[in-house]
Amino acid sequence: PLPHLTGSGEAHIVDVGEKPATRRVAVAEGWIRLSEAAFAALQAGELKKGDALGTARIAGLMAAKRTADLVPLCHPVALSHAEVTLTPETATHRVECRVRTETTGPTGVEMEALTAVQTALLTVYDMCKGLDRGMEIGGVRLVHKRGGRSGHWGDDPG
Amino acid sequence: PLPHLTGSGEAHIVDVGEKPATRRVAVAEGWIRLSEAAFAALQAGELKKGDALGTARIAGLMAAKRTADLVPLCHPVALSHAEVTLTPETATHRVECRVRTETTGPTGVEMEALTAVQTALLTVYDMCKGLDRGMEIGGVRLVHKRGGRSGHWGDDPG
Amino acid sequence: PLPHLTGSGEAHIVDVGEKPATRRVAVAEGWIRLSEAAFAALQAGELKKGDALGTARIAGLMAAKRTADLVPLCHPVALSHAEVTLTPETATHRVECRVRTETTGPTGVEMEALTAVQTALLTVYDMCKGLDRGMEIGGVRLVHKRGGRSGHWGDDPG
Amino acid sequence: PLPHLTGSGEAHIVDVGEKPATRRVAVAEGWIRLSEAAFAALQAGELKKGDALGTARIAGLMAAKRTADLVPLCHPVALSHAEVTLTPETATHRVECRVRTETTGPTGVEMEALTAVQTALLTVYDMCKGLDRGMEIGGVRLVHKRGGRSGHWGDDPG
Amino acid sequence: PLPHLTGSGEAHIVDVGEKPATRRVAVAEGWIRLSEAAFAALQAGELKKGDALGTARIAGLMAAKRTADLVPLCHPVALSHAEVTLTPETATHRVECRVRTETTGPTGVEMEALTAVQTALLTVYDMCKGLDRGMEIGGVRLVHKRGGRSGHWGDDPG
Amino acid sequence: PLPHLTGSGEAHIVDVGEKPATRRVAVAEGWIRLSEAAFAALQAGELKKGDALGTARIAGLMAAKRTADLVPLCHPVALSHAEVTLTPETATHRVECRVRTETTGPTGVEMEALTAVQTALLTVYDMCKGLDRGMEIGGVRLVHKRGGRSGHWGDDPG
Repeated sequence: PLPHLTGSGEAHIVDVGEKPATRRVAVAEGWIRLSEAAFAALQAGELKKGDALGTARIAGLMAAKRTADLVPLCHPVALSHAEVTLTPETATHRVECRVRTETTGPTGVEMEALTAVQTALLTVYDMCKGLDRGMEIGGVRLVHKRGGRSGHWGDDPG
Repeated sequence: PLPHLTGSGEAHIVDVGEKPATRRVAVAEGWIRLSEAAFAALQAGELKKGDALGTARIAGLMAAKRTADLVPLCHPVALSHAEVTLTPETATHRVECRVRTETTGPTGVEMEALTAVQTALLTVYDMCKGLDRGMEIGGVRLVHKRGGRSGHWGDDPG
Repeated sequence: PLPHLTGSGEAHIVDVGEKPATRRVAVAEGWIRLSEAAFAALQAGELKKGDALGTARIAGLMAAKRTADLVPLCHPVALSHAEVTLTPETATHRVECRVRTETTGPTGVEMEALTAVQTALLTVYDMCKGLDRGMEIGGVRLVHKRGGRSGHWGDDPG
Repeated sequence: PLPHLTGSGEAHIVDVGEKPATRRVAVAEGWIRLSEAAFAALQAGELKKGDALGTARIAGLMAAKRTADLVPLCHPVALSHAEVTLTPETATHRVECRVRTETTGPTGVEMEALTAVQTALLTVYDMCKGLDRGMEIGGVRLVHKRGGRSGHWGDDPG
Repeated sequence: PLPHLTGSGEAHIVDVGEKPATRRVAVAEGWIRLSEAAFAALQAGELKKGDALGTARIAGLMAAKRTADLVPLCHPVALSHAEVTLTPETATHRVECRVRTETTGPTGVEMEALTAVQTALLTVYDMCKGLDRGMEIGGVRLVHKRGGRSGHWGDDPG
Repeated sequence: PLPHLTGSGEAHIVDVGEKPATRRVAVAEGWIRLSEAAFAALQAGELKKGDALGTARIAGLMAAKRTADLVPLCHPVALSHAEVTLTPETATHRVECRVRTETTGPTGVEMEALTAVQTALLTVYDMCKGLDRGMEIGGVRLVHKRGGRSGHWGDDPG
């Protein structure tokens, strides 16, 4: 029998109807590594497509609000707060991205934070790809979460 | 003066009106590293949310079609082909993702391939996060592109 | 092994890169059967939510344009024409829906026509559900298609 | 005068501001009837587009979350639970679809359940249409609802 | 340094986690001025694309529900009520649009009302543009808001 | 009889299947008038929500790509170029917005340009509304179009 048809294997949106609404915070991060030329152009504001970091920040914030539309089994969440920080690191030619998301509800906001990180970094790729096809995105992970039955996880960045 | 207001720094969707339509192919890849317990549950089909790889594949394909809706300066593309492959690697506890996208048009399909990789891996995260909060996504990069003025780039996987 | 992992079973967006663009037409239909009271209120323009058929027509047209966003493996299509006809049939207390979609491209527009029928009928349900919970939607099928390698199918309604 | 301009006929999103939040459940169902050849290929996992039921399930769940984006006068709802069950019936060559949706809020989740049924069945059509153009979708109806002022409706499937 | 990188200038979704949920109302308005010929055709129901006001009303209501998807820093809001009124004014050849939106939540619904006004008027433009390219949209403003820390603003239209 | 049911009055997506693909350009404009305090804060980069013009520009570009998803009877268009210019005018306390859109296809891109203007100006409203509720948006109009059967319209801004 196909595994979709078995009780245990069927993909579904799990029931959170009994979970209380609590304050939720998540922080996620990741980076994109650029070539020297692309990093210099980004820093100098000389990319052909325009301002990479400002565009990536907005892309990340908008994607955070669409998480449940992209990740099939995510519960819809009404974010009460979202911040995307993008920091170019000269020593490594990386742009570091950190996102903080918050809500009050029965489910966490980790997926929203991770989706924002991914989309912000994809946008940096798009803005710089005329100069560099070999950029790599990595280090995408949850840094911290707070709220819900499982309480704190990870290092609290304040 | 704010950099957005200068001619060179303004974000915009660059003009591709004069570029000829050519056949375009892109291949991108990335991975997510799971804990031993999460990897075992994924392999055994015992995740609480259900079938992770089948769900992630669909999420990747759907995201590929929404790339221009997520990445602000991407041109809209009508994909003629998209494939998402997800391979669990027992030795590393990673799920490897590889995506191939194709179209015939004036712009490439790299962003579509990368968006599919990112969303498929995010979906694996979502399916497994009840067992592991510390998963990491990395190695997200373009493997190959073909078509357009710049021709081939990277290793052709066939 | 999970069927998703086998070559033949993996869901994917099939390659249409070699298919020529031809003129495509599809016609689909379906109906929703209302109670006597709901049908009378719809006919009299006395539904609490307002004009059911006008709202359903717009919903159908908008859904046709979003088909590839809803049906995972559908290719994106730029419709060149779409019409939604809704006809109340007094004898049966049904609203009949017929949709015609057209484009010029490598793939057909059957899914667009069927998606429009389904969404228009869902919208009639929504508009009338204060008066009747027992409405049934049925008879949703392709009536005719034209264009592409397989040529004509079904009865040509002109 | 056009009916849209009269007080009673104007389509609008009705005011639910005074309705209390209660626990809401809806169950809806429908079927698609396949030809013998298409049904056999679906059962054997031999469809060209891949795994039909797994893909349809995800499509249904994602569509449930987009209901208010498709049905013009639906209130937005944050689902707390959604399940899509697809069962091939050998005797009739039908795939039966049943969906359960839940939330806690001022409005019901019938439209979400019906939208998921419709989109899951459309997706089965899409997956099988290379083998059969004459499939029919029918029997789409609400089976049960619970919660809100009107309380229970229909047979409670547990 | 780029202004996006300074603490004060970074675009973000401001934190409303501490704001109490209160009943919110907003009323916004605007108009579109048509040529005599276009206005006459709209009034007579003779536009080539069909019923302009009915279509514009639905477009406005659907756009109101998508506000947070369009305006980057808007918080998601679950509307409890929305009404779009479109009134042709013969003396001025204008169609006047007025929208009322309501919710109970930590943030206001002004942006939802304004987005509905703008999209309804854009839709009138689209319906009439075969007859008149010179239409102008103006007078788009908030008329009234109620609820939240700042209480009432503007004239209460009841 | 309801006007939706008459042949002439039914809203539909008009048939453009016979229209040739030509190069299309549209330029649209509009403004938002701010209070002195809000204008000064925008100019100084001191708005609580962050960089208004950079955010509005991205919002306008993204909305241009979603025009057919917002305006019910618009044909889908694959934009080949889009630019949003926002200029604060100190004498009038207005932000002027001008948008240029281009494609090659059977239909024009006026609606895309106007949708971008409207959404960019809405975003400026959102960014400044903490300081000023009385802002007004006006002067939204097509400046120029080129391409298609009707050829040039309006003043060509080059």
